[in-house]
Amino acid sequence: MIVRDGVTLGEGGHRRRGEAHAEVEALRDAQARGNDVRGATAYVSLEPCSHHGRTPPCAEALIAAGIARVAIGALDPNPHTAAGGVQRLRDSGIDTVVYDTPEALALIERFAWTIVHDRPYVTLKMAMSLDGCVASRPGTQQWLTGPAARERVRELRAEHDAVMVGAGTIRVDDPQLTVRPHITRRKPYARVVLCETAPIPSSAAVLATPPDAPQDAYARTIVLAPAGARAEFAPLAERADLVFVGGDGDRTIDLTAALRALREREVSSVLCEGGPTLAGRLLAGGLVQRIVWLIAPTFLRGETAVPVLAGADLAGRDGWRFDRIERLGDDMLLSADLTACSPA
Amino acid sequence: MIVRDGVTLGEGGHRRRGEAHAEVEALRDAQARGNDVRGATAYVSLEPCSHHGRTPPCAEALIAAGIARVAIGALDPNPHTAAGGVQRLRDSGIDTVVYDTPEALALIERFAWTIVHDRPYVTLKMAMSLDGCVASRPGTQQWLTGPAARERVRELRAEHDAVMVGAGTIRVDDPQLTVRPHITRRKPYARVVLCETAPIPSSAAVLATPPDAPQDAYARTIVLAPAGARAEFAPLAERADLVFVGGDGDRTIDLTAALRALREREVSSVLCEGGPTLAGRLLAGGLVQRIVWLIAPTFLRGETAVPVLAGADLAGRDGWRFDRIERLGDDMLLSADLTACSPA
Repeated sequence: MIVRDGVTLGEGGHRRRGEAHAEVEALRDAQARGNDVRGATAYVSLEPCSHHGRTPPCAEALIAAGIARVAIGALDPNPHTAAGGVQRLRDSGIDTVVYDTPEALALIERFAWTIVHDRPYVTLKMAMSLDGCVASRPGTQQWLTGPAARERVRELRAEHDAVMVGAGTIRVDDPQLTVRPHITRRKPYARVVLCETAPIPSSAAVLATPPDAPQDAYARTIVLAPAGARAEFAPLAERADLVFVGGDGDRTIDLTAALRALREREVSSVLCEGGPTLAGRLLAGGLVQRIVWLIAPTFLRGETAVPVLAGADLAGRDGWRFDRIERLGDDMLLSADLTACSPA
Repeated sequence: MIVRDGVTLGEGGHRRRGEAHAEVEALRDAQARGNDVRGATAYVSLEPCSHHGRTPPCAEALIAAGIARVAIGALDPNPHTAAGGVQRLRDSGIDTVVYDTPEALALIERFAWTIVHDRPYVTLKMAMSLDGCVASRPGTQQWLTGPAARERVRELRAEHDAVMVGAGTIRVDDPQLTVRPHITRRKPYARVVLCETAPIPSSAAVLATPPDAPQDAYARTIVLAPAGARAEFAPLAERADLVFVGGDGDRTIDLTAALRALREREVSSVLCEGGPTLAGRLLAGGLVQRIVWLIAPTFLRGETAVPVLAGADLAGRDGWRFDRIERLGDDMLLSADLTACSPA
């Protein structure tokens, strides 16, 4: 946003990887509006880039346009390529302020994680009863939460580049994992199935694109499978983007490698919706950045009830801070992340 | 509250069982202030009584004072003794309005339950991790929640006539179950231990009164034990109010009978703080009216983790509605009851 004396001269946002960054968009917008930006102030959420990548460096564009002052929310977290914009601006005599406050960092939370860790930002969403269970018996589909919670989940999906579930969830629930109403995203939305033991049925709903979906609403479904099981999974190649993880002998999937494989396919953020086994493994591996817990006002505990997390020993995996709470119809949503500051 | 033309003439509340009801207190207050209440309106949360019990009937007092109009929040839930006040007022020509709205009913929630069900109103409070566990191993004490949550629990205790735990909690945590800072309640506060298998150690903290506690802050501790185990429990009689439940052959405790025994000892409301076995049994028995769930932003799941509820099959025990949510430091409090209307 480019501003002079409280008046906005131009606005812009980074719309799609490979296209112009927000700074250039804002300068173009000001020009289109016939506004002179010389001597004005630019407010940017992230440090302007100073490297020639897919787009020309934004720092140079600001300098060339005669911007007098730049106020920056957060420094670029990427130490290798993008950083250096502040230095470049200051070297050109531009008055440059960096806030780097928690609020500013929250704005670029996912972007920062993806860059620094070279794997997608993972949000883990689970829905459970008040006694921490997802179903009263294994292998049964159970709608715990109401319509408002389910609608919120569809919004959450749209906020991520991909939704991911374990093969067990496909077998039990056979979900479509679509966003409804259909949206066309900047990046097509991907549906991901982590499939370790045996291929999911080729009739699974997640492998079909709803006939009424607009073009580009969904990428093909990605099935992550162990490289040691190529032959068994080969039949799925017709219906999904089949990605083999690990080496030829691997019959299991290393989750970090699986997430990296998604990142290579331009997936920067993933909403994992379970099931309990995948959720437990991701948490135990320290691969989750945000948790979204939907809690239904009901109890499921019994001999056969299925706990929300399976397997992994999670004691000590701490550092979570609640930072969001929402009432969704009869249900509650609690969200926490690992990095947020505790609100007062 | 007695009001004329928007001016409060007198106020009162029912302070202690056996003492004057709110209506009489308010009439006395108006008299003490020198206010004439003839032709004024009385606002009362509960239908004025029309029977001669421990106190004279309030309906008669209102009639005798010349009150012209009575606005009543909720009808008296007791069908046998107290009801009839509205009829008596109307028979005397007093303009009587009954709201009976959810808000008015909420005001008398606990009182109403106790009267109708002849057992105490039970609030079940549990503290658990995000994956529904109370400890990472059986038999270990674990502080899941922070200071703000623990302070809120002490407030919750003060709002009830008694706090109750199972013997397992005494053995693992050895809590005092006191309210701090000490308060002197209208009714002394009781600490209750449900003790089915073997007597708790006579050194248990719950059997001692803190030396700095004011007189009347705590009643003696009540130990509920099966009547078939009189001999084993006899040594505890010196240190607690030992209450045997059931018949001579009983080695287990019927929870409804145990709660009735508390009601006979003037306990109208109980805060149960676990552990998982007692909590599961109370819920399975439909004996809980409100749940208070403290959720710590941590995970405990592992081979040995202890689920928040044990034993009972709770599937189908539904009807809970979330009606309160609080952030307590790093923790969250969710509360639900069986009777509240769903907030919009």
